Order: sequence, then C-alpha cells, then structure tokens
Amino acid sequence: MTTVNKSINFHGLDSLREANEQALETALKELTSKIEKLDQEAITAMQQRLDAKIKPTRSLGVLEDIAQQLAGIYRTSHPAIKGKAVLLMGGDHGVVAEGVSAAPQEVTVQMFYSYLKGGAGINVLTDHAGAKLIATDIGIAVPLDPPELMANRVKNGTDNMAHGPAMTRQETLLALLTGAKIAAQAIASGINLLATGEVGIGNTTPSAALVSVFTGHSVEEVAGSGTGLRNDALIHKQEVIKRAIEVNQPDPTDPMDTLSKIGGLEIAALTGAILEAAYQHVPIILDGIISSAAALTAEELAPLSASYMISSHNSEEQGHRLALKKLGLQPRLDFHMRLGEGTGAALMFPMVEAALKIADEMATFEAAGVSTGDF
Amino acid sequence: MTTVNKSINFHGLDSLREANEQALETALKELTSKIEKLDQEAITAMQQRLDAKIKPTRSLGVLEDIAQQLAGIYRTSHPAIKGKAVLLMGGDHGVVAEGVSAAPQEVTVQMFYSYLKGGAGINVLTDHAGAKLIATDIGIAVPLDPPELMANRVKNGTDNMAHGPAMTRQETLLALLTGAKIAAQAIASGINLLATGEVGIGNTTPSAALVSVFTGHSVEEVAGSGTGLRNDALIHKQEVIKRAIEVNQPDPTDPMDTLSKIGGLEIAALTGAILEAAYQHVPIILDGIISSAAALTAEELAPLSASYMISSHNSEEQGHRLALKKLGLQPRLDFHMRLGEGTGAALMFPMVEAALKIADEMATFEAAGVSTGDF
Repeated sequence: MTTVNKSINFHGLDSLREANEQALETALKELTSKIEKLDQEAITAMQQRLDAKIKPTRSLGVLEDIAQQLAGIYRTSHPAIKGKAVLLMGGDHGVVAEGVSAAPQEVTVQMFYSYLKGGAGINVLTDHAGAKLIATDIGIAVPLDPPELMANRVKNGTDNMAHGPAMTRQETLLALLTGAKIAAQAIASGINLLATGEVGIGNTTPSAALVSVFTGHSVEEVAGSGTGLRNDALIHKQEVIKRAIEVNQPDPTDPMDTLSKIGGLEIAALTGAILEAAYQHVPIILDGIISSAAALTAEELAPLSASYMISSHNSEEQGHRLALKKLGLQPRLDFHMRLGEGTGAALMFPMVEAALKIADEMATFEAAGVSTGDF
Repeated sequence: MTTVNKSINFHGLDSLREANEQALETALKELTSKIEKLDQEAITAMQQRLDAKIKPTRSLGVLEDIAQQLAGIYRTSHPAIKGKAVLLMGGDHGVVAEGVSAAPQEVTVQMFYSYLKGGAGINVLTDHAGAKLIATDIGIAVPLDPPELMANRVKNGTDNMAHGPAMTRQETLLALLTGAKIAAQAIASGINLLATGEVGIGNTTPSAALVSVFTGHSVEEVAGSGTGLRNDALIHKQEVIKRAIEVNQPDPTDPMDTLSKIGGLEIAALTGAILEAAYQHVPIILDGIISSAAALTAEELAPLSASYMISSHNSEEQGHRLALKKLGLQPRLDFHMRLGEGTGAALMFPMVEAALKIADEMATFEAAGVSTGDF
C-alpha cells in the first residue's frame, strides 16, 4: 500500500479546500472507479484453513464468514489486524429548526468535546476493544475551542432540507473527500480495521430520508422511533422527511445529488471513509442507521464497496435493518441500542478478532489426532 | 460468601460418591430451595448510575440490562467481574447406537483431550476473552489417560434412551451435584462469571428431547438440523427422540425423572452448575441447545435460577430458541454457530464486561457539562 503518498497527494489533489468542484468530482471518480473485488483465491485459501480445524465444517458460521471476508479484503490467506479505530464524524443539521429532535442542538458540540476528553460511551467501548477513537468535526454548527479542532469543518451545519438542499454539491464533495482523507490518514498510521461512528443532533432525519430514497421503502417504514421521540413527534418527523424529499426531488440515480439535498456533512464524510477503506483494502464495520445511510450512498457510488463492509448491531431504528438488507448484510448483535457514536460497531471489534484467532490458533484434525468427518 | 466451606462440606455432604440416594436428594433440595431473588435495590441503584451517564435514557439497551442484572445478582450497585470461566462438561450417549449422529463416538474423547491440550475452538475463544476453561469428564464412554482425569466421572456414558432410561435417578443426582461442585470449586477459586459448555457426540438428541418435554413443543419443532446431519438423518433422529419419550414416559412435573430418563450426564452436570451459580449469586452465560436444555431443567427445579442466566448466541438448533423463550431470554448474538463447547457463550464475555465498564467509566451529565434531557 502507498498510503503515505496518498495522504500527501490525495486522489490527485494537493489540497481539498483549494480544489474547485470539477477537481473534486475527478477525485471522487478516481476513488470510486478503483475499488476492487475481493481476492477470491485468498477467500478459498482461508476456507481451506478453516475446514482443516477440529470442528464440523462451517460450524463457526459468521466467524468463518468474517475470516474469509478479511482474507479477501487483505488479499492474503493469513490476514492480521494491526490496528483498529472508530472514525467518528460530527455534524449539525439545519432541519432541527423543524423540531425533529427532542434534544437541543448544543448537545452535538457538548458530546464532541466529551469524545476528545473521554467519558462518552464510545470512549469506553473503544478502550474496551483496544481501538482508537478518531473524532472529527465535519460540520458542527458552533465554533470550537481551540479553532484547530475545526480544521476539517466544511460548513457550520447543513441548511434546512425541509426548505431546500442541505448542502451544495461542492460542499458535499468536500465533506465526502474529507472523510476519505481522514480514513486514509488512519490507514497510513497503521490502522487496518475501521468502524463508523457519528454525532449530530437530528441526524436520524436525513439518514431516514436517504434510506427511503435509496431503498424505495416508504418514509413510514424507514423512520423509526429515533432517540427519545414519542408518537406525535414521530409523525411530525415523518412529515418533515416527506417534505424534504418533496421539496428537493433528489435523483436516486445520482447519489451525490441525493446526498447533497437530503444528507448531512457527517454522513457524507462517512460515505467517503467507507469508499476510502474499500479503495485501500481495509474492512469497515458499520454502526447504526446513520452509518448505514452513508454505506448505502457508498454502495450507490461504487457497488463493490459493499463487500468491504461488516455489519454489527441491529439498532432500534427501523430503517437500519432495511438499509442493511439492501447492502446484503444482516445484523449480528441484537442489543437494542440507539446511542449512535459507533457504539454498536465497537462491540463488533472483539468478534472480528475472534474470527482471525480461530484461523490462526485452532488445531487441525491432523495435528490433534481427531477423527475427521462431518460431526 | 462461604465458598471454601461449601466446597469442603458441599450442601451437607462430605463426599458425593459415598452418599446414598436419599442424602443426594436432600442435598439437591438444599441447593434448589435456597436460591434467592435478585436484589431489587441494587438493580435500582445501578439504573440510577446508568441514567446519569451522558447518553439518552436506556439507549445502551441490553448492555444496561446486563449491568442491572449483575448488580441484582452480586447484590451491589458496583458489581465487578473478578474471574471468568467456561465450565465444559463431557459425556457420552448410549443413544448413538441408534445412528443419531454423523460423527463417531470416539470424537468425544478426542475432543476432550484437545480441550486439555489447547487448540479447540473453545480454547481459542476463552483465551481471547481472558477466561479459564474448566473441562470435566462427567461420563465419557471410554477410559482416559491418566486415570485421574476420570475423577468426576459418574458412568461410562448413558444407557440408550431409545430402549429405557438414560440414567438411574441416583446417577442423575450424582452427575447434577458433581456439576454443582465443579461450579462451587470455580467460584471458590475467585471466578464470579461462569459460562456453560459441553462435549458429547449425540447430545443434541437428549437435549431436544428435554426441550420438547419441558416446553411442550413437538419433537419436529424442537429437533433442528443437528451438526452435519442431512434430511433423512434428521427424520430418523426425530423418530428416535419420539421413541425415547414414548418408551420412558418422563414426568414433566418431575424434572429429575425427566432428566434421568431422556437426559445426559453432562446435561445433568450443567444443570447442577447453573443451580450452584444461582445459589452462590454468580451469573452464568448459556451456550446452545445442550446448555439450554440444562437451563430448562434448572428452572424446573428452581424457577428463580433463570434470573441468574445470561443468553448468548442463537445457535442453528431450532429447539435452542424455543428453550430460551421458555426461560424468558432472547439470543443476543446471531452468528449461525453450531459447534457447541461453549463457543457461543464465550463470545458473550466481552459484552458482559462492556456492560459494567459503561457503568464504571462513562461520565455523568453533571461531570461532562452535557445538557440533560431525553436526547
């Protein structure tokens, strides 16, 4: 991998901020067009390794699937996890003016500081997993102190999608490529297992909108209870999502158009992070509905990117499962979580590590003197 | 806890092997009658701790449920895991003479040696979780070398339940109390989080029989695909289970009668381990259908024992989910595993630890300066 060069001259760009829209489009094209299929030979080699272990064939189920997927992604029969990180992207949403969230917008920045300081749920769970937490402001609405924390901010929150596009196309491209660059930097630092996380009061609203448009499921089917919202509030949220889709008329065959009109800055950044992970042959664990909305967008932009994704939990948001289904994924952890931040994805780290330990540490029938056969 | 005394004078018995049936019955009665309800005050105190953390109320779902359960079990608002172990019980089954298993019976002893030597799936997963593996021969059919390995063996495999009772009542009592004693010894050594595991070629057959009798579901509903069995074989297995129930007429209102007639030595030992865990205020993680058959038996003997159980995965055996449902439990990991040994339960260790870290390490709204409210 030539990650160090890539982080200097990122998809042909010296600086994202100074690039014009055309240059950003070209960079995105370069990113999405070069995502490769998994290495089938490595997958087969891994399956042969697993089949020689003292267990009935395929009896470790999803652990074996993950071991094979990692072999295919890393392009080796002996994949190894060298470093793990949750990429947590923060952004605010103009649509909160419509009263779609029970929490005040100030919670976004308060929680963002808590990620930097430690003490949030995702800090506890990344520490537990021995993973790094990389929290980035992509578009929080208010200033941060110190100002360097805003180095990657594209915009002070999205515009209100109930009245017009959330972002311009250029802003969306910039947010997406910024997310890709953050993933590239993490990979360049030695991390080769990523997970997605986010913070942004109101962000289940654009996520549900994206899932509805990309899956074709109705807003009612997709927009679940959100965090803390009661029944009247849920109906109102669904109406706001429908209005945003009606007002903006996103073109589902143009994922960047859709993302810019009814998406969000942190969602765009996660889309970019997923694409960059796939581009660089790095698996990425998805968290809840916001991550899955980004994953759907990534798949629309580059269908092969889906084979680099690993599902984690089944969140309380109805649209989450519909998004995973469209991606060909199934949730693996049923913990009724609805916190976000990447907390569900972080719980999946030890499972992915277990999958490779099975391949590396289990004895073979031959070495252990156990009778073979399908027991 | 007076665990050391208990392991010397175990439920009133100096020696299990020298006790007569009446003394064993009395010991079992002592064990089952003294299992207590969880401490509701500690549960409430834990919920208060969790509600003060910087997250929407109850948004960590099952992690919060587990933290509360552990508070209730350990009877403290600040529960701590001091040591973890999988109790793996081994036993053979006379019913394999009916051709219910695709694997030869010799695999039981071969796999048992592999647990002692390391290199089996459960060794890898207990190592991964930082847990101990305690493998015990309760009733393997063939001699072990060295003979000390057979110190806890009750019988050289069960009798063929298709023709009569699998065990006598005394053998069943002895196997159950032996399992309880092994749990007590583990607890006395400082372990306070247990999990169940097993090995025994053919043991999905008695397990399905027990689940059918205790849940009232038909044999067809309960007896799933087993490990590696194809369709004709499955029909045959179901017929054998039905014959065993027909021949033995187990009394579902007398769990020891049912366990002795259509159970197994390792299943009885796991039943005892679960009861002892509950008796000593120690949580116990259940693995697949064999563990769940033991858990159902434990619940029949002492209904309060169910509140000490933690579910783990959803195995490929159909009866597993039915057993969990009867116990009021839901599977948490959907990994399509069917290996046994305790491998699904072992994957749950990091989740249980994560639950307590949430309580111990997350910041409060007050300390972090985050706006409260249901966000």
